[in-house]
Amino acid sequence: MRATTIHAPFDIRSDDVADPSLLRPTDAVVRVTASCVCGSDLWRYRGESGFTPGDRMGHEFVGVVEAAGDSVSTVAVGDFVVTPFTWGDNTCRNCANGINTSCENGGWYGSTDRNGLPVDGGQGELVRVPLADGTLVSTPTMPSESQLPDLLALSDVMCTGWHCARAAHVGPGDTVAVIGDGAVGLSAVLAARLMGAGRIIVMSRHETRQQLAIEWGATEVVEERGEAGEARVLQLTDGLGVDAALECVGTDAAMRTAIAVTRPAGRVGYVGVPHGIEMPMGTVFTKNLQIGGGVASVRQYLPELRDRVLAGEINPGRVFDLQLPLAEVAEGYAAMHERRAIKTMLLP
Amino acid sequence: MRATTIHAPFDIRSDDVADPSLLRPTDAVVRVTASCVCGSDLWRYRGESGFTPGDRMGHEFVGVVEAAGDSVSTVAVGDFVVTPFTWGDNTCRNCANGINTSCENGGWYGSTDRNGLPVDGGQGELVRVPLADGTLVSTPTMPSESQLPDLLALSDVMCTGWHCARAAHVGPGDTVAVIGDGAVGLSAVLAARLMGAGRIIVMSRHETRQQLAIEWGATEVVEERGEAGEARVLQLTDGLGVDAALECVGTDAAMRTAIAVTRPAGRVGYVGVPHGIEMPMGTVFTKNLQIGGGVASVRQYLPELRDRVLAGEINPGRVFDLQLPLAEVAEGYAAMHERRAIKTMLLP
Repeated sequence: MRATTIHAPFDIRSDDVADPSLLRPTDAVVRVTASCVCGSDLWRYRGESGFTPGDRMGHEFVGVVEAAGDSVSTVAVGDFVVTPFTWGDNTCRNCANGINTSCENGGWYGSTDRNGLPVDGGQGELVRVPLADGTLVSTPTMPSESQLPDLLALSDVMCTGWHCARAAHVGPGDTVAVIGDGAVGLSAVLAARLMGAGRIIVMSRHETRQQLAIEWGATEVVEERGEAGEARVLQLTDGLGVDAALECVGTDAAMRTAIAVTRPAGRVGYVGVPHGIEMPMGTVFTKNLQIGGGVASVRQYLPELRDRVLAGEINPGRVFDLQLPLAEVAEGYAAMHERRAIKTMLLP
Repeated sequence: MRATTIHAPFDIRSDDVADPSLLRPTDAVVRVTASCVCGSDLWRYRGESGFTPGDRMGHEFVGVVEAAGDSVSTVAVGDFVVTPFTWGDNTCRNCANGINTSCENGGWYGSTDRNGLPVDGGQGELVRVPLADGTLVSTPTMPSESQLPDLLALSDVMCTGWHCARAAHVGPGDTVAVIGDGAVGLSAVLAARLMGAGRIIVMSRHETRQQLAIEWGATEVVEERGEAGEARVLQLTDGLGVDAALECVGTDAAMRTAIAVTRPAGRVGYVGVPHGIEMPMGTVFTKNLQIGGGVASVRQYLPELRDRVLAGEINPGRVFDLQLPLAEVAEGYAAMHERRAIKTMLLP
């Protein structure tokens, strides 16, 4: 089959690799209907995170179950399924505590399982999914083609934006600032609206992203960055700051802005993989900020958000503004890196 | 009157200073019945925080209202009052959000008010209290001598321990670790018990402090520090970690321990003034920890905890294990610095 690999910074390839098969009775093999490129993939693409040449890429996909191990009972061959970007058992102590991304028996796509057996990346034609019962969430019927992007977005970005808003305890009437206008930032806008936020200030200087943010519930746009942007948000809130800031980038600058624009005793949610963040603890302490977030527990949110998608209530797939065949995956990375695309969807 | 001043590291004096008087119609002047030395006073004492020679010290006291300005309506001359360690209006946007320590019109004892007028330190005979209505909490009758330490403890440490447990969202059945066995750490043990924690692991190697912690609800004591201490807490929780860690020191080592012993998606409360804390954001992100805390909003908690003290339900004043006349305040600092005393109470 074809699958995506990384060989050096900016060197993404679609390679021929061995087809996966069932290796454990708890496995499923899923034929990928659609996958996508993640903002976090770009850290490796840019050489800012380490990798081994030949590493398999991708962790967000939807597809159809092609084979299921003898122990698999919640999904069956022929089912359409969405995967969280991690796999796990959904029963261990951490999963029971709502944090499947810390599953005691789980792991990452494009890596190995707890038995040392290979797990495919998501940007390919087929994926062996370990612990299929605890991982995959199926749809009652085969979704329409137009629903594909919306369901695919649940695999990571929509649930990650949701996680950010949840970590910041966004509630009815809150004034919220969203830092980051990538797919996760835009999803966080949508999540904040669904949670009842009264005002949503999105920090963005890209017109198409501003447009989608506004359609999804942003009430104000701040184009300035850094100190000027922080001053503008404070001005919009009569000098007080927002109830909750959603930091969807992962850089030190973004976190500093989140902290600067949040009111005393406000909440900062963050879901961007931290790169070089030095928390200004003096300020965080003085302002009594609550900081929460991390790797999104997608599996927890999938059933509810799947139902909202299938009911036509939300269209999180609108973050995909570039669609490419899997063979052209390298262009999909380049377009996101150069900010020509918010998010790239890949079709087999 | 006599009041406490600092002139150099380790140079604390009881000086003659001018008596305060009412300077604004919202002022009260309180005659101090008892005051105390705070763990945070020791940062300046040790030269680890800056000061100007001659600075007035102390921010925790109880006393009797000796004079009240024309606008003061909630306390009257002759009332026994407890003060939070900060003063404020209790009506501004931040106070309304529950965080009086960020009062838009408030400030610190031993400093100046928003009009530039001097505000006395608490370790003295008399204190001008600005914004008396928003600051002071009175008792219905004159408390007994034995209740003095308990009410004095509400001025800071008990409410600060409470704030820590609240910031960590301690709830019924939780397993909690308390890092720090000073007065605040011990108060945090008591707070966690009052909030229903099922297990309370206190990290302490001082026998008298362990004893009080156990009386107040600690179920286990860990004497090891650093990595050995962290390993022990993880062992006690079957490798998972605690639901909530209460960091009551303020050092990088204490915060690292708090983070290491907290389970994925657990909560870290912290109330020690941060000194050199470098948050390990990679770990915090991967574990999805919620970090909350800061300067305790004592004024919010005072009425409830005052009632619990007056009902004889709690005895937070037991943290005072040294009582000295105000004139011997320097020895009170030395005893705490050398860990001969948990907390020093000063009487006029």
